[in-house]
Amino acid sequence: MIIPENDRLIIGAENIERRWSENHQHQLTENARAEILAFPIIAEEVSELLRWASRYNVPVTPRGAGTNLTGSTVPLYGGLVIDLSRMNHILCLDEDTMTLSVEPGVLLEDVQDYVSQRGYFYPPDPGEKKSTIGGNIATNAGGMRAVRYGVTRDYVRKLQVVFADGTISELGSSTIKDASGLSLKESLIGSEGTLGIITRADLKILNSPEFSRSVLLAFSDLEQAGKNVLEILSSSLNPTAIEFMNRTVVQLGEQFLNFAYPFETAGSYLLLTFDGSENVVREQLDLLKDLAEENGAIGLEVLDDPKRAARIWQVRGALCTAVEATSMQEPIDIVVPIDKICRFVRFVEDLEKRSQLQMVSFGHAGDGNIHLCIVRGQLDEDEWEEKLALVLQTLYDEAYACGGLASGEHGIGLQKRKYFLAHSDPSVIALMNGIKNAFDPAHILNKGKSYVIEQERNIYA
Amino acid sequence: MIIPENDRLIIGAENIERRWSENHQHQLTENARAEILAFPIIAEEVSELLRWASRYNVPVTPRGAGTNLTGSTVPLYGGLVIDLSRMNHILCLDEDTMTLSVEPGVLLEDVQDYVSQRGYFYPPDPGEKKSTIGGNIATNAGGMRAVRYGVTRDYVRKLQVVFADGTISELGSSTIKDASGLSLKESLIGSEGTLGIITRADLKILNSPEFSRSVLLAFSDLEQAGKNVLEILSSSLNPTAIEFMNRTVVQLGEQFLNFAYPFETAGSYLLLTFDGSENVVREQLDLLKDLAEENGAIGLEVLDDPKRAARIWQVRGALCTAVEATSMQEPIDIVVPIDKICRFVRFVEDLEKRSQLQMVSFGHAGDGNIHLCIVRGQLDEDEWEEKLALVLQTLYDEAYACGGLASGEHGIGLQKRKYFLAHSDPSVIALMNGIKNAFDPAHILNKGKSYVIEQERNIYA
Repeated sequence: MIIPENDRLIIGAENIERRWSENHQHQLTENARAEILAFPIIAEEVSELLRWASRYNVPVTPRGAGTNLTGSTVPLYGGLVIDLSRMNHILCLDEDTMTLSVEPGVLLEDVQDYVSQRGYFYPPDPGEKKSTIGGNIATNAGGMRAVRYGVTRDYVRKLQVVFADGTISELGSSTIKDASGLSLKESLIGSEGTLGIITRADLKILNSPEFSRSVLLAFSDLEQAGKNVLEILSSSLNPTAIEFMNRTVVQLGEQFLNFAYPFETAGSYLLLTFDGSENVVREQLDLLKDLAEENGAIGLEVLDDPKRAARIWQVRGALCTAVEATSMQEPIDIVVPIDKICRFVRFVEDLEKRSQLQMVSFGHAGDGNIHLCIVRGQLDEDEWEEKLALVLQTLYDEAYACGGLASGEHGIGLQKRKYFLAHSDPSVIALMNGIKNAFDPAHILNKGKSYVIEQERNIYA
Repeated sequence: MIIPENDRLIIGAENIERRWSENHQHQLTENARAEILAFPIIAEEVSELLRWASRYNVPVTPRGAGTNLTGSTVPLYGGLVIDLSRMNHILCLDEDTMTLSVEPGVLLEDVQDYVSQRGYFYPPDPGEKKSTIGGNIATNAGGMRAVRYGVTRDYVRKLQVVFADGTISELGSSTIKDASGLSLKESLIGSEGTLGIITRADLKILNSPEFSRSVLLAFSDLEQAGKNVLEILSSSLNPTAIEFMNRTVVQLGEQFLNFAYPFETAGSYLLLTFDGSENVVREQLDLLKDLAEENGAIGLEVLDDPKRAARIWQVRGALCTAVEATSMQEPIDIVVPIDKICRFVRFVEDLEKRSQLQMVSFGHAGDGNIHLCIVRGQLDEDEWEEKLALVLQTLYDEAYACGGLASGEHGIGLQKRKYFLAHSDPSVIALMNGIKNAFDPAHILNKGKSYVIEQERNIYA
């Protein structure tokens, strides 16, 4: 284990104690700075750190690659940050049971590369490929392929977890079915570091699809696009991805990458992918053509040229970056039932006009997960904070009015906590805290994040 | 709400109090007989019952159709049985979001019929079609189609639950993605009535597959069959079901139904189903033929004739009944990692010889879930109890040694509790009980079942 202290390295948890007196009173640190940063490399070291932190009631913030968008790895109460980025080994590929065992600090892109080189496929595909698998599990990350393949939760067979008191346990099993007691594994998935620290994950993998093809569909407006999404989802088509982008948003990406989409008179686009054997995919593309024609598509291009397909997807992928290149922005990942996407996107467009804050919305039409960047532009800090607070309140109110949720795949962290707590049933939040108390009675793990209510002080709530 | 009392009906929870004094001391009832049986018809009545039971610390046992195989609805401590069989309405089919809302007492077969008549498909397919959806969720029931479509857990979008104190809450959401706080819905699934009573479920449904075809494969022995299962699962084939049966077991079903399987020299059979468009299924069948030929299959029959297909499946479905027709039996549903099926079945065959107890094993080869009937035959009660206890101990030891679990889909209930607790990590069981304490601090719900450890007295442990 390596604990950098200024420019020295200190080995072993016993040395941490030198930096932490028993009388240390932790409190909300104004600058959210941790006193100690540790880089364990095995579960036993994580255990040693947590036993120590439990003994002295030291707040602990687990951290992967730090790519989260919600402030979930900010060490709000100071204390100890456990950085898992050096636990980054792929441990075992079991081809008989189609299971890949990894350490939590392995990057998503490394998992995807490793399995694809061997003819396999790890379906969860969040946009941030440099996020860690541990972080993906802690937030139940989703991504583009959720419409067909599901989310991270669906690919976790088994977890090794270190609990707050240092106990190392195995949750879940290598079996496919499980009706043996409560599933603690399911509680850990999406718990944002509040219940335990993941030190190994056994992931389910699939065979690589033989063939894959993307299609760009153009519509005169959002409603036409939205109607097609519902028709596609309730047809026998089985798309892997259905992304939607309005023309105004696509233009941002086009300018950023200097590449033009076809059908420039379109008001709205859908970008789809189909996976399978070539015959099946070709069959699906024919069905899609018929369906789109019947439903008023004004353009359809099958992206047979891989280079062109890559460019088209690049524009979709670059939308956030295109916005960030010009201004600070607030990222949001509200999710609504799939039949409420048009309503929500129209609401955003209307709010954009009313608030005069630029809002760039696009996202996963197939699963109702809308990515929205609220752009700061030229506003000074006070004005930005004030306008943003107002707009966020309005957006989350509308999301919940649609039967939606604050987060589809990023998690709650700090940033959405206020809105999440305000819109959640208090008795449900109390039960979540009941589970927290069972797993981490002293509340040392990721204090003040997500659903966790601290007795002594409510943070950001 | 209807509460039968002898041959009268009492309406309303206030009347229950007449039958329950405040000084009533509940204890383990020798004959496991409840004092009160209630048939609520709306969530508010379930809430009223639970508020009352909480006030007087009355043990509550929720009950669906009572088809469980684990004793999970036995009112071990007496008290109140809440029978949900009259909450049996299908509430709403939302075709836009492909969601079916049902009350908990709706039978699985009624859900399957309702959606299939409308061109939809509810994939979970436990053998017992007269079980309730509430019970399916409470045990995370699996079934034949899990290999392709997953289990009940994968089809629950949202639950309405009444907690022990009478609070009615909604868990989960109508969205497809969810990264918003701990998933209490996931905790409820598979909780066997220990955390709350489900009063409504929103289920995800799919489009009916256009075409479906079953295939019977014959092998000289179990190892050949097992090797083929692994090859099929790691190929591009995507079977809906893979059932295995040894010849000796098939013979029981053949005699019972007076219908003979082909390839009577086979040692072992696999029965598979493929779903999809006709082209895709035909393509898959061709691939299967090649693969089976390469891997030593001694017979293959595509079951194109629906009547013949139904008969072949009937034999598979009748195996338990065929056994029960001749003798009392103990049903087991151990699950092991898929690469350990042969090892486990061979172990059973060996144990059968050593113990001289007949054991009929068959099951879901695609997901490692082995159904095993231990047959009492002519043994008198003492001899049966003694032999059974010894054999069960040996079987569960071997299951866990294989990395398996006590139950794949039936749940733990009372019957597997001893073995489940003995093989589980005590700190994991303690956390399950921590969750129990958060949801039901007075332990009124399904006392003494599954993972629940009662402070005052350990039941069957």
